[in-house]
Amino acid sequence: MRCEVIAIGTELLLGQIVDTNSSWIGEQLALAGIDCLHQSKVGDNLGRMVESLRVALGRADAVIVCGGLGPTQDDITREAIAEVMGVDLVRDDAIAQRIRDRFAARGRHMTENNLRQADVPRGASPIPQMPGTAPGLVCPVGERVVYAVPGVPWEMRQMMEGTIVPDLRRRAGDTGIIRSRVVRTWGLAESALAEILADRITALDATGNPTIAFLASGIEGLKVRLTAKAPDAATAARILAEEEARVCALLGEAVFGFDDQTMESVVLDGLVARGLTVAVAESVTGGMVASRLAGIPGASRALRGGVVAYSSEVKRALLGVPEGPVVTADCAKAMADGVRRLLGADVGLATTGVAGPDEQEGQPVGTVWLGVAVGDEVSAEHQRLPGDRERIRQYAVISLLSALRRVLGIEPAG
Amino acid sequence: MRCEVIAIGTELLLGQIVDTNSSWIGEQLALAGIDCLHQSKVGDNLGRMVESLRVALGRADAVIVCGGLGPTQDDITREAIAEVMGVDLVRDDAIAQRIRDRFAARGRHMTENNLRQADVPRGASPIPQMPGTAPGLVCPVGERVVYAVPGVPWEMRQMMEGTIVPDLRRRAGDTGIIRSRVVRTWGLAESALAEILADRITALDATGNPTIAFLASGIEGLKVRLTAKAPDAATAARILAEEEARVCALLGEAVFGFDDQTMESVVLDGLVARGLTVAVAESVTGGMVASRLAGIPGASRALRGGVVAYSSEVKRALLGVPEGPVVTADCAKAMADGVRRLLGADVGLATTGVAGPDEQEGQPVGTVWLGVAVGDEVSAEHQRLPGDRERIRQYAVISLLSALRRVLGIEPAG
Repeated sequence: MRCEVIAIGTELLLGQIVDTNSSWIGEQLALAGIDCLHQSKVGDNLGRMVESLRVALGRADAVIVCGGLGPTQDDITREAIAEVMGVDLVRDDAIAQRIRDRFAARGRHMTENNLRQADVPRGASPIPQMPGTAPGLVCPVGERVVYAVPGVPWEMRQMMEGTIVPDLRRRAGDTGIIRSRVVRTWGLAESALAEILADRITALDATGNPTIAFLASGIEGLKVRLTAKAPDAATAARILAEEEARVCALLGEAVFGFDDQTMESVVLDGLVARGLTVAVAESVTGGMVASRLAGIPGASRALRGGVVAYSSEVKRALLGVPEGPVVTADCAKAMADGVRRLLGADVGLATTGVAGPDEQEGQPVGTVWLGVAVGDEVSAEHQRLPGDRERIRQYAVISLLSALRRVLGIEPAG
Repeated sequence: MRCEVIAIGTELLLGQIVDTNSSWIGEQLALAGIDCLHQSKVGDNLGRMVESLRVALGRADAVIVCGGLGPTQDDITREAIAEVMGVDLVRDDAIAQRIRDRFAARGRHMTENNLRQADVPRGASPIPQMPGTAPGLVCPVGERVVYAVPGVPWEMRQMMEGTIVPDLRRRAGDTGIIRSRVVRTWGLAESALAEILADRITALDATGNPTIAFLASGIEGLKVRLTAKAPDAATAARILAEEEARVCALLGEAVFGFDDQTMESVVLDGLVARGLTVAVAESVTGGMVASRLAGIPGASRALRGGVVAYSSEVKRALLGVPEGPVVTADCAKAMADGVRRLLGADVGLATTGVAGPDEQEGQPVGTVWLGVAVGDEVSAEHQRLPGDRERIRQYAVISLLSALRRVLGIEPAG
């Protein structure tokens, strides 16, 4: 069973809106075991919409068209589908009444053009879920099918979950299950990761199940995605568990978590489990470390707070950093030790470095020192980070949290 | 001149990452007067990549392929383009050396598979901009051209601006000019903005030039994009200047800047112009305000630093906040005043509130107090912000900076 996605809207092509709908739809299809091999965007142009629909129907069993169902003149998805079906548009009185009721319920005046939304290709059936005024449509094209859904995300999602995914699964017959597991890592370059896993990937290529893919995600680290197909959920889970064990054994301490676990959530849970509080002293990251930790609901269980010591005077006055250069191991250590004393925390973290654009103290852009103070152990780690100012700051954040993870011996918890 | 965009990556189809690159590329093409009528996504599959390239080259003069240039086994964009060109891959020694140098400069070990990135289709030429280890490529296909760029946004963007857009414009000959101006606002809801501009938009619909579009952008505020077409840059600039004046007159103090100016850059420039330094005390935003300010190159001209006072003890011990509830105007004022004294800054800023998921001190999620201390004036502003935890924190950041902007009377500088 193959299903393509076509997102409709000139504003998508002009980059005025990012197409997040197709990504969400693709995720739902994968979880339902439906292959989605192509996704495309096309503007509000009848000819090109018809052409895109025909190309998609030539490759796939089903097509989900997202957008262009509104009441305005440039909402012509209904017309495009009718042309592909070779039928005309007919007014659906039931839908028209629902639209009138919807406006009445909101006490809003309904203009006549809103009833354009009740014109459907002959032979198409409306999708029962209709949270807005734009009806979704199920449009048979021979043995194949086109689903039309509005571009409004929460309206589209209800129709996907309520009608389209179940209908696709029924058409697919007893389809297999696809399950994914993301092994999250930090500390290995993507190329090093690839080399470590190369033999295993080659071995898997024979069966194609499970599969392994990488995804570099900046401050989210480097993700290794394991995907398994199976006749049932239990078998898929077993295949994933076995592959996960293999991959984790190969990658060792680079693995910090799984799926939606972030480095900051893993570190925060590790601190809470040990009954430790943390304080952060930030120069080059300027508050980003504390902000990431504070982003987690319940961060107050471990996060006391921090000091953004951007100017050298603040480093010295508040954190007791000695005179002299500040892009150094000693400065990082003094900051980490100083902030935990100042804020009365068990653990102190610190960043100092050069985010650019200019070098500092003769140190090149990307030079970062990360300080960690736990008990009597106050250490500093040197990093040379790539990228622009923002990227260097983000890499510094995850590198610092990863350093604390290693010092405390926080194991990834599935 | 028509240019299509193909985003490469199975993770895009599976919805594990959102394809923001195509949107950005589409925006740049529109600004350059290049038509982009189709954008598509395809997985890491040689056959489908080749097919998609051929379809795109059948409809357009140029194709930009984004992604699949990395060192790993599933990075096969080079192979796909070579097949479409009907040539083999050859090792480019110059690129190979640049990759070796890049690793050496970072003091990191280079694995052999990194040199796969130096294998280019025979007849292709590398793009001079190479901020990472993945080289971009210009690949002639008869009279047409395929550009290959990495999926890493900041690498892709440098190649687009430095090589691809200028090359496309040259190939297009003297094309009409499209120029855009973004008027950046904060403090008006999108619906209010639309109502204020409704008459003007209706008037413009007659000519279609210039055009006005909105884009809500979270922490970046609400953007009003003005787009003008003209035979030459001077005329386009005049049309935009006239429209900008009209729009700014209608929107008043909601306008904080233009184009790439962010709220934090406008506020930082305003502080520097007045010779003022700033310190930030953050509870609900947890360091995000300081981090945004520190993200600007040269932030040290005005930013002393800040205190992340996440726990109430830190608020009291460091900032002198009196006992009692902390989601209050008095707490925000005490924090703003306390942090400027502690860090020796002229201006103090503060945030305290409830980001959720649970209410606090009987205050509902979204309740935020923003403190501003300038000279003898210490004020606090109340906000009820919508959305989830992250959105509330982001809105609090831009709302606080906007409050300082109004207190200091910082005018938008074009």
